[in-house]
Amino acid sequence: MKRYKAKIAYDGSGFAGYQIQPDSRTVQQELLTVLKRIHKGEAIQVVASGRTDAKVHATGQVIHFDSPLDIPLNGWLKALNVLLPEDIRVHDIEETDPAFHARYHTSGKTYRYKWDRSKVISPFTRNYLVHVKQLPDVAQMRIASKAILGTHDFSSFCAANTGVVDKVRTIRHLEFEEHGEELHMVIEGSGFLYNMVRIIAGTLMEVGIGRRDASELAEIVGAADRSRAGKTAAAHGLYLENVEYES
Amino acid sequence: MKRYKAKIAYDGSGFAGYQIQPDSRTVQQELLTVLKRIHKGEAIQVVASGRTDAKVHATGQVIHFDSPLDIPLNGWLKALNVLLPEDIRVHDIEETDPAFHARYHTSGKTYRYKWDRSKVISPFTRNYLVHVKQLPDVAQMRIASKAILGTHDFSSFCAANTGVVDKVRTIRHLEFEEHGEELHMVIEGSGFLYNMVRIIAGTLMEVGIGRRDASELAEIVGAADRSRAGKTAAAHGLYLENVEYES
Repeated sequence: MKRYKAKIAYDGSGFAGYQIQPDSRTVQQELLTVLKRIHKGEAIQVVASGRTDAKVHATGQVIHFDSPLDIPLNGWLKALNVLLPEDIRVHDIEETDPAFHARYHTSGKTYRYKWDRSKVISPFTRNYLVHVKQLPDVAQMRIASKAILGTHDFSSFCAANTGVVDKVRTIRHLEFEEHGEELHMVIEGSGFLYNMVRIIAGTLMEVGIGRRDASELAEIVGAADRSRAGKTAAAHGLYLENVEYES
Repeated sequence: MKRYKAKIAYDGSGFAGYQIQPDSRTVQQELLTVLKRIHKGEAIQVVASGRTDAKVHATGQVIHFDSPLDIPLNGWLKALNVLLPEDIRVHDIEETDPAFHARYHTSGKTYRYKWDRSKVISPFTRNYLVHVKQLPDVAQMRIASKAILGTHDFSSFCAANTGVVDKVRTIRHLEFEEHGEELHMVIEGSGFLYNMVRIIAGTLMEVGIGRRDASELAEIVGAADRSRAGKTAAAHGLYLENVEYES
């Protein structure tokens, strides 16, 4: 039995999210179906670094699975990409320590949130970027984002009633990148609560369009109260870009 | 009554092509439905520069229509984009000479054909780029493309049985652009026969992957015989980028 670690990308548009659920198309279900086919009917479990919600994309989700088959790495890559639907792609696969765990051993994650600032959104990016009608003040968003950096109780930026008790997380990097009409927020941290990136994106964009002042952010973080932060930004602007592991 | 000229973009993925046809979703049908709504049930005709096939995209299709309504240009732009589905966007609208005709007065068109040369195609571009597994020799494609330039009978590059008699067209520009993993063919000419850009793209790619020699192209053009050219490249790599008009 060998354990494999794979880096996968998926277009979230056609999925009800990563995690398997009845009567819905999910990334996990597609992976299980293909692995079962490769193993001639034998069920193979797949573990991902974490779930992603409906419409959320991934460019660097990490999964692991075990297999008794003796297939070279290049063969795995080809077989998986031939059998998987085109909206899921396996970009890398490697054999890993049998003790490696895609969820338990994460030491950090990077997400990217993408907005489109063009006057009329392109029909080609409607599922991949979130349109902002008003031109945001990126300098103010950068100032506001400083309050997010560091170790905090992020209760203000977590969907209510998630059952998670410890809401302390560490955000190590938070940057805004401008690529032509596109505005990206790139955020890296030790871990993220449910909806945390989307609530941070939504709140910082409210600063960008002048609905809040940048100086409010420190207070919002300190309040540890979801009702103080802004709206949860739309799912289709979010990308899971990278997962880090303890080495 | 005023005549309006509009520049529109659409993602061809969800359409059976531009032109209206029964029981299919088409760009023209969506435009007619929205114009009828704006005109409170009165049917308004729409004329485009030409048809595009199923899955073919447009970034610069041009249409015209007449309206008795007194709406400022900015109001037209907003109304159309609010009512149209998100995979069609109106980028520009202007009032034009009542004698202007979007189809009859074209003096040239520019198309772009996009390939992806990455090892594994991104799930985000599967409907927008055509994957080439083998790394093409772009230098040879450029050499071969010289034979396409100029005025020729393009029968070798036209789907058989189209009913068009005069197959002489002039290609004024044909360039390959490399954008990272993307390879684009940009072609501009007086007019194009049915499937002409896709057959040129398919034939030049056969040169790129070594299935034909660049020197064959002049002969293929001269033969004026569809069976001599290569395969018709896939529809979803093609974009109608610009339409020129006599000024």
